[in-house]
Amino acid sequence: MRIPDWLTRRAVTHRTAAALMHDGETWDYETLWRRARQRAGQLAARGVHPGDRVAVLMRHGLEYALTVHAVIQAEAVLVPVNWRLAASEIAWQLADADVAWLLCDEACAGLAADAAALVTPAVPVWNVADDPGPPDAPARGRETIDLGAVFTIIYTSGTTGLPKGAVLTYGNFLWSAMGSAPQLGVLPGDRWLVPMPLFHVGGLSVLMRSVIYGTAAVIHDRFDPLQVLEALTRDRITLLSAVPTMLQRVLALDPDPRCFSSLRAVLLGGSAAPPGLLAASAERGIPVATTYGLTETTSQAATLMPQDAARKMGSSGQPLWTTEIRVVRDGQPMPPGEEGEIVVRGPTVTPGYWRRPDATAEAIRDGWLHTGDIGVFDADGFLYVLDRRSDLIVSGGENVYPAEVERVLCQHPAVAEAGVVGIPDPIWGHVPAAFVVLWPDRRAAEAELASFCRSRLAAYKVPKRFFFVDALPRNASGKLLRRALREWAQA
Amino acid sequence: MRIPDWLTRRAVTHRTAAALMHDGETWDYETLWRRARQRAGQLAARGVHPGDRVAVLMRHGLEYALTVHAVIQAEAVLVPVNWRLAASEIAWQLADADVAWLLCDEACAGLAADAAALVTPAVPVWNVADDPGPPDAPARGRETIDLGAVFTIIYTSGTTGLPKGAVLTYGNFLWSAMGSAPQLGVLPGDRWLVPMPLFHVGGLSVLMRSVIYGTAAVIHDRFDPLQVLEALTRDRITLLSAVPTMLQRVLALDPDPRCFSSLRAVLLGGSAAPPGLLAASAERGIPVATTYGLTETTSQAATLMPQDAARKMGSSGQPLWTTEIRVVRDGQPMPPGEEGEIVVRGPTVTPGYWRRPDATAEAIRDGWLHTGDIGVFDADGFLYVLDRRSDLIVSGGENVYPAEVERVLCQHPAVAEAGVVGIPDPIWGHVPAAFVVLWPDRRAAEAELASFCRSRLAAYKVPKRFFFVDALPRNASGKLLRRALREWAQA
Repeated sequence: MRIPDWLTRRAVTHRTAAALMHDGETWDYETLWRRARQRAGQLAARGVHPGDRVAVLMRHGLEYALTVHAVIQAEAVLVPVNWRLAASEIAWQLADADVAWLLCDEACAGLAADAAALVTPAVPVWNVADDPGPPDAPARGRETIDLGAVFTIIYTSGTTGLPKGAVLTYGNFLWSAMGSAPQLGVLPGDRWLVPMPLFHVGGLSVLMRSVIYGTAAVIHDRFDPLQVLEALTRDRITLLSAVPTMLQRVLALDPDPRCFSSLRAVLLGGSAAPPGLLAASAERGIPVATTYGLTETTSQAATLMPQDAARKMGSSGQPLWTTEIRVVRDGQPMPPGEEGEIVVRGPTVTPGYWRRPDATAEAIRDGWLHTGDIGVFDADGFLYVLDRRSDLIVSGGENVYPAEVERVLCQHPAVAEAGVVGIPDPIWGHVPAAFVVLWPDRRAAEAELASFCRSRLAAYKVPKRFFFVDALPRNASGKLLRRALREWAQA
Repeated sequence: MRIPDWLTRRAVTHRTAAALMHDGETWDYETLWRRARQRAGQLAARGVHPGDRVAVLMRHGLEYALTVHAVIQAEAVLVPVNWRLAASEIAWQLADADVAWLLCDEACAGLAADAAALVTPAVPVWNVADDPGPPDAPARGRETIDLGAVFTIIYTSGTTGLPKGAVLTYGNFLWSAMGSAPQLGVLPGDRWLVPMPLFHVGGLSVLMRSVIYGTAAVIHDRFDPLQVLEALTRDRITLLSAVPTMLQRVLALDPDPRCFSSLRAVLLGGSAAPPGLLAASAERGIPVATTYGLTETTSQAATLMPQDAARKMGSSGQPLWTTEIRVVRDGQPMPPGEEGEIVVRGPTVTPGYWRRPDATAEAIRDGWLHTGDIGVFDADGFLYVLDRRSDLIVSGGENVYPAEVERVLCQHPAVAEAGVVGIPDPIWGHVPAAFVVLWPDRRAAEAELASFCRSRLAAYKVPKRFFFVDALPRNASGKLLRRALREWAQA
């Protein structure tokens, strides 16, 4: 199905309304539309065709948002890149997505050059801060959007330790915005603050919701609790997306509860919210909406409304109205109170992984996305997520897959085996810790292993503690028992 | 595409939230769902199968709303019937839609029996007030909704004088709700007052939006300005649907402006709003959103937001964000400032008329619905409707098609020719007036013609004035010049 292009429509209906707010600067929809078309023209002048993949590696939120809209206007496919990754990790994604160009800003120029050079043939890099492009390139734009067309490929790791590109369509984002609207509400004057990275689906979906609704996205390049507090008051923020760590750090400043008076909801996702944080928020009258979502479900799959927060503490709430969630065991839906794997179906679910029919077929069966997460419904239909998939470690909102870190550790010549688990951390929620078995005749110091990881992995994935052990706990069939590792770590 | 059934979902996520408010009674979503399933079971027990047409002729708003949801749960097709119509008009629709059952309430029982008996074979009538149905019929319901499936057939007259059934799908209503949301806003506590008939698309779409959003519809069986004022204050109404006549009558009570303080918008449609009414509303701070829509576009196609009301006085605003509107002449889109026929495309547009491929092909070409209305865009993309289609007379929110009234008048043995036009009326906006040419040897008094019309037409269609003339103004090819008739009426 085709609908009128969002941004083009908003440039008419919301010409002078705020589209983006960033560091004291406000762009209205006409400005965003005009600049996005200009940059789309620059992309076309560089040979980008509709359907080409364009990777974006930027820390500057306004440039990033502009580039997202330029990629849309050029009808190319967005590949957002996590700037916390190591160059080799980024190179892997660039090669896998077969990108035509890598766009970066000043802050990411070095990392972009390193990553692009690791790909054969090298990926061309456009530093938008350095080079505004040929001034006479004609602007490019689009009139309509095909809801079935691929909008973005977002990489997410998994049990195998190799990232997969989750394909998300325009329709996925449209239905996400529509599914969210009746829960969090929509008002023409809304301002949605996103101090989270825009390369994750949580941040990107705020940009998309805003243009779909014709409301404003307020972007912070990096999370700073004081800046968030200032923005809440000064910019009269109505909605805030955050991970629990962020809200915790804002509350640590002991702010005046009046700072939160314009807020309709804090959409809190990424990992389970500690009960203490929810209680502290409730005390201050902060309306928290905890949410459960995945890249593969275009962010929110279920959301707990602020009014249910007290009586359903710890729940991730109810499915968005367009989304179906079940808890299954051996393929059978479980009744309330019975645990099982969380599966999700509906128009926000990815059509699959980029060029990975095998992984797609494994994850999506009969239209149901198998998340690998364990959950349970209560009698009122509220979802409780008991265990994140595949022993996932969520560290300050970033996902760390143990298998990926273990794979890197095992590449070290001294390491025979490695097991990685999350250990509690007062700031980040959890951080990775590694249990390492060395070869009998080899030696490696903790510092050396950490440095080995740092050169190959994003900093947040590098184990914060190393434990050297004689053997890893395994079951009869040799499967690593991570639960036992967690107990070891506690002891 | 299939999505979870709205009502079933809301019965879980909004179990105790108000779904319907009517005359001091409030039903929550669990109650509405349970009763709708019970009534759906009664429909099934009466032999109604999925896809069967079920006509509904009721004045009792709560019964009507319940029945709409019961028809949905039974997967049947709703045929809402205007209770202002004459029995013969209703019979025509029942026969055309080939309905399996006609459901009525106490107030419409006589009319329903009369109409049903005129069809061969007679349509079975179920008076829900009389007969609760077999108590042991199992409840019926649905889990999902196919957005492409037919939800309702709504009859609308036209230039030919014979009504056509506009087919509307579940998807049409879903996209209407989604298209409207960013403009009028959605908040979980919304209460939408609809003192308009629920058998028209304007009223029906409020019922549908409410269940889609999980908000409350507040229903008045008939429009009473004092009741509206009371409801605004007592029920803390946030949205109100009305036609200009209604708002005019509310303002005639000279209400305290504070009555309107909880209102986010008055959605004003059905006919052009007089400038004096808009000015009087603005003076009192009433946020009026004038809208242009048709049955065939599932109500709103364009809406003028309250904040633009002053600078764009007289405009119907901008298209909903999912809707495209053009002004065309000879098939070519006209630039701003140039008049032409209004054409509409998008997911709220009807797939066509019930069993009328000819009329469908004539109205919808290349996906564009040709409305017959004349309009013009200004440079900012705001639509101004200059002339309603086919000399349509809008009388107190009801559409009167001159051709239909003329056809009836010409059936009178004394009438040789008739021409009908609208004349201004202080209460109804316009009322029909007839110019009649009698056969040379026949006589008929005004009262006799009026009575003749009353037995065959809804009261609002009966001409309020009759002018006897020697000939009607026609052009060279014999086409009636209604513009000349309107000038005669003024003189």
